[in-house]
Amino acid sequence: MTKRERAEDVVHSMLNNDPFSKWLGIEVVEISPGSVTLRMKVRKEMLNGFGYCHGGVTFSLADSALAFAANSHGKVSLLVKASMSYPEVIREGDILTARTEEQSLSNSIGIYTIIVTRNGHQKVGIFQGTVYRTRKDHMLNQTQSYNQ
Amino acid sequence: MTKRERAEDVVHSMLNNDPFSKWLGIEVVEISPGSVTLRMKVRKEMLNGFGYCHGGVTFSLADSALAFAANSHGKVSLLVKASMSYPEVIREGDILTARTEEQSLSNSIGIYTIIVTRNGHQKVGIFQGTVYRTRKDHMLNQTQSYNQ
Amino acid sequence: MTKRERAEDVVHSMLNNDPFSKWLGIEVVEISPGSVTLRMKVRKEMLNGFGYCHGGVTFSLADSALAFAANSHGKVSLLVKASMSYPEVIREGDILTARTEEQSLSNSIGIYTIIVTRNGHQKVGIFQGTVYRTRKDHMLNQTQSYNQ
Amino acid sequence: MTKRERAEDVVHSMLNNDPFSKWLGIEVVEISPGSVTLRMKVRKEMLNGFGYCHGGVTFSLADSALAFAANSHGKVSLLVKASMSYPEVIREGDILTARTEEQSLSNSIGIYTIIVTRNGHQKVGIFQGTVYRTRKDHMLNQTQSYNQ
Repeated sequence: MTKRERAEDVVHSMLNNDPFSKWLGIEVVEISPGSVTLRMKVRKEMLNGFGYCHGGVTFSLADSALAFAANSHGKVSLLVKASMSYPEVIREGDILTARTEEQSLSNSIGIYTIIVTRNGHQKVGIFQGTVYRTRKDHMLNQTQSYNQ
Repeated sequence: MTKRERAEDVVHSMLNNDPFSKWLGIEVVEISPGSVTLRMKVRKEMLNGFGYCHGGVTFSLADSALAFAANSHGKVSLLVKASMSYPEVIREGDILTARTEEQSLSNSIGIYTIIVTRNGHQKVGIFQGTVYRTRKDHMLNQTQSYNQ
Repeated sequence: MTKRERAEDVVHSMLNNDPFSKWLGIEVVEISPGSVTLRMKVRKEMLNGFGYCHGGVTFSLADSALAFAANSHGKVSLLVKASMSYPEVIREGDILTARTEEQSLSNSIGIYTIIVTRNGHQKVGIFQGTVYRTRKDHMLNQTQSYNQ
Repeated sequence: MTKRERAEDVVHSMLNNDPFSKWLGIEVVEISPGSVTLRMKVRKEMLNGFGYCHGGVTFSLADSALAFAANSHGKVSLLVKASMSYPEVIREGDILTARTEEQSLSNSIGIYTIIVTRNGHQKVGIFQGTVYRTRKDHMLNQTQSYNQ
């Protein structure tokens, strides 16, 4: 299994077992080791009291992207801290794309920037997240059996 | 109308018009000007691929608490930036409580810390958020009519 | 040696060997395991181009407080990520006090909030920091010999 | 005066009047509207108790870069919140370079990412900062007279 195949296996297994990412309607656009691109559409039930997309929904998309990118190396990796800036409001029907960038990777810590764009170009979220990398491997056979 | 009554009106109107906070099952425990306590229960569809509560769900609860607390003063206030730390994993069935603390309030900027606890005592999320305070008032009559 | 004595030993050794904290004029007000209070005075050479205290100086005070508090348990602990909010500008001559609060402590991660106040009461900085706790003990005898 | 000339005037005036950035030994490598590159060398008095560069020093370099980039558009802009991740330790003698990227700019809020590299290539700091843009113009004539 190549590194790219392992990355694809881990990400697809994680998404298949992730009810909240499925509720969000997240689709995987692209995967490589340490990197993913995800996409989703903002639905009515994701809006806040101002009629804009709830800040937690945008954060959740970026957080799923972080989790998939960080775990794609094959080690179980858990979110420690994340921050997000919101330069523009987001509306119902907008298509959001989240692209990860791996800023740094050591044995124990990984740091990622995720840029969320609307409708292909305008930046609507800038996310930075830190994961703690455990020594535990993703057991792909077991994970795959989850999907059956 | 007292300041407390205005705070209660704003928060209840915001929650009533907030489909995502309703999907989360958020209940208001306590309101005073600049401060709220919210509560929700973690359901199966809020879990991630590891079987824990998705980090975006915990963030969303804290973000709703921030929005309600910041807007309870009566000025429309929008999230600019937030960060969250995750000291412990959260499981299905856990009851989460978010309590806001207003650290600072100027004409244009408000800063809030929100502590999320599990089952009444253990800290599972530490959130810090900054809002931009517009000069626009919450129009309560109009907002109240939303609720009818 | 009690836990409090060990905390005092670690913090005093760290400060004695920390040229930048000494340049800042940091004094230790109080130490207990997992907690410190520090104090410093803003000098002319700490100002920025607007004549206010440089944001990096306030951050540095909070960061030293984080490092001292986190390491006071006796394990070498390194800053992973920190964020700071600046509710008010700070001026030359202001006395800054930084008080730490340990929000969470696990084997590998510690999370701290540090509130910086001016002249005893007004909040001028809200800092949140995450440290990675190594398995390495502070070797106090060796550290003490650094001071000779 | 072109936008680039105004950016250069603002940045050089700010640096000339900024005692702490001068203490750090910050040099301007490049300026354009909304963007700067800065450089400095880590000196012995910038180290912490572990013998590494103090986290506050790296933050200060990034914070100065943020301030120069944000103010280079000509409006007085003040730091509201910043966060920094530290993927690698930094040592005495290292040459640090900070490059800004303007992620978003509205009338009232600007968002910037600053990457700090060591010795030209290795990432040692990832900074994200939010500024509040006042309506006040930089008065260049007055500022220039400061420099005489």
